[in-house]
Amino acid sequence: MQHVDMGLPFLANNWLFFLIIFTIYLTCKFVYKHKSLLGNLKTYFNKSTPLLNSNDGDHSHSFNSQETMPHINYIHHIPFLINISKNHNYSKSLLLETAITRSKDYFNLMNSRRSIRFFSSKPVPPLEVMENIIKTAGTSPSGAHCQPWTFVLISNPRIKKEVRNIVEMEEEINYKKRMGEKWVEDLKFARTNWIKEYLETAPYLIIVFKQVYGYQNNNEGMVEKTPFYYQEMSVCIACGILISAIHNAGMVTLTSTPLNSNNKLKRLLNRPDNEKAILILPVGYPAKDATVPNIKRKKLSDIMVHID
Amino acid sequence: MQHVDMGLPFLANNWLFFLIIFTIYLTCKFVYKHKSLLGNLKTYFNKSTPLLNSNDGDHSHSFNSQETMPHINYIHHIPFLINISKNHNYSKSLLLETAITRSKDYFNLMNSRRSIRFFSSKPVPPLEVMENIIKTAGTSPSGAHCQPWTFVLISNPRIKKEVRNIVEMEEEINYKKRMGEKWVEDLKFARTNWIKEYLETAPYLIIVFKQVYGYQNNNEGMVEKTPFYYQEMSVCIACGILISAIHNAGMVTLTSTPLNSNNKLKRLLNRPDNEKAILILPVGYPAKDATVPNIKRKKLSDIMVHID
Repeated sequence: MQHVDMGLPFLANNWLFFLIIFTIYLTCKFVYKHKSLLGNLKTYFNKSTPLLNSNDGDHSHSFNSQETMPHINYIHHIPFLINISKNHNYSKSLLLETAITRSKDYFNLMNSRRSIRFFSSKPVPPLEVMENIIKTAGTSPSGAHCQPWTFVLISNPRIKKEVRNIVEMEEEINYKKRMGEKWVEDLKFARTNWIKEYLETAPYLIIVFKQVYGYQNNNEGMVEKTPFYYQEMSVCIACGILISAIHNAGMVTLTSTPLNSNNKLKRLLNRPDNEKAILILPVGYPAKDATVPNIKRKKLSDIMVHID
Repeated sequence: MQHVDMGLPFLANNWLFFLIIFTIYLTCKFVYKHKSLLGNLKTYFNKSTPLLNSNDGDHSHSFNSQETMPHINYIHHIPFLINISKNHNYSKSLLLETAITRSKDYFNLMNSRRSIRFFSSKPVPPLEVMENIIKTAGTSPSGAHCQPWTFVLISNPRIKKEVRNIVEMEEEINYKKRMGEKWVEDLKFARTNWIKEYLETAPYLIIVFKQVYGYQNNNEGMVEKTPFYYQEMSVCIACGILISAIHNAGMVTLTSTPLNSNNKLKRLLNRPDNEKAILILPVGYPAKDATVPNIKRKKLSDIMVHID
């Protein structure tokens, strides 16, 4: 094991040294490239360390339950009363037969929903309807009842245009870089290029932001960051309820993601550091000549397994 | 740089060698621990390489749209007709006034939902109702219309018991390891320990699995893996619709996550490699003495920003 140092030049003498430097460089580069990992690691360490606020620990595995609430000791429990809205034709004694009819009707209603990308700019749904559907999304359960969501409702034509520009620019890069010009040309006939007219024609855009963390006062009265667990799952569950509310009100939408536009959208809409755009939903009424792809949904037997 | 090899013992002579081995070991361990990263890397490389199936590329940024469908060229477009169920008291000309009333009623209905963890074992909702609510979840939009979900419906008491054992075992480790005995004792009065009676008392458990990837026939007629994009977002949106359907049918549920129980649950329920458990929902009717924490939801002004 002594031969490397017997009169060989500098490089040969120190090859192990250079190799180790190179390995460390590669590791750093790898970690840097996947910074999100650092976040995960941070969360991981936070989780495995006993927490000062003993209730935080449970945030990680349960939604909306009493044990997941910060400061559980101070939260009263109250009897649960079935408290269905007076406006709804829904008796207090929820009979099983009612359940069959209601569940069938609700399936038929939801099954008539389609994702639409051809919008009419008129009529404009009243703001009250938009507020009601967003309030409905806000009834969603969430991890530790953090309610980590912000719904930015855009009706301003100039801002809609800017959103369209941002998203189309990202899409165009995406298409051209990944697909090649030929393919883009080939697909033009199908109106499936990066042009997203609906971002301007739809009377409303809802841009859904998840809150990655929140803020709370610590024991010394200082504001500090507090982790929000399961924010993406929570916000998507809320969006499921939002989509059902949009459809129930007779409007249509398209569930789309902002891809790489998050930073530009945040700047445009003046959103705080702790938020990230996860969905863009144009909302309104379909264009007269709107079409949808002729596709089917999976059968119940393909999505359900019953163990009885 | 020559001093280490001048008659020093074996270890000192080769310290660089041992250091490099140790660094490589740490790197491997790091990568192994975060295997998901490998998946991301794989996806990353897949994305940046031009794809043979030119339509796959768009899977990554849009839900349920025609351009995101595999083999777009073969999918017909059909006119979109507002096609609300005959059973529903919903006229074809969706008047705006109807939208206001409907959206308000729907908000009131959904706002009466609470997460419940005290279940009655009777009455048992008819299987038909459970099928209807799962069919309703199946109407959700999904990234590239992959519909990457499986709903395992458990009514078998022995399997429910086993699910409870698996989840409680994980929870107990979690509590004891992270919280300490004292805290666990302190919280017993609030019924907020790792005991999850509701997993046995609720007449049904729905365990929701996301499909991380799918299978398709390639050009040579061989079955190969096909990536499912945005599966978790898609499945959570479907669960939002599922939760609305459960509530609409007059039943209650608790939105909970399986934490570290995925592998054991998969083995118990005989799920394939491409699935991962993401939510456990007990479904049924509340116990007579069910309580809920006395908490409020955020106001509309706290969750909505209107840019008009």
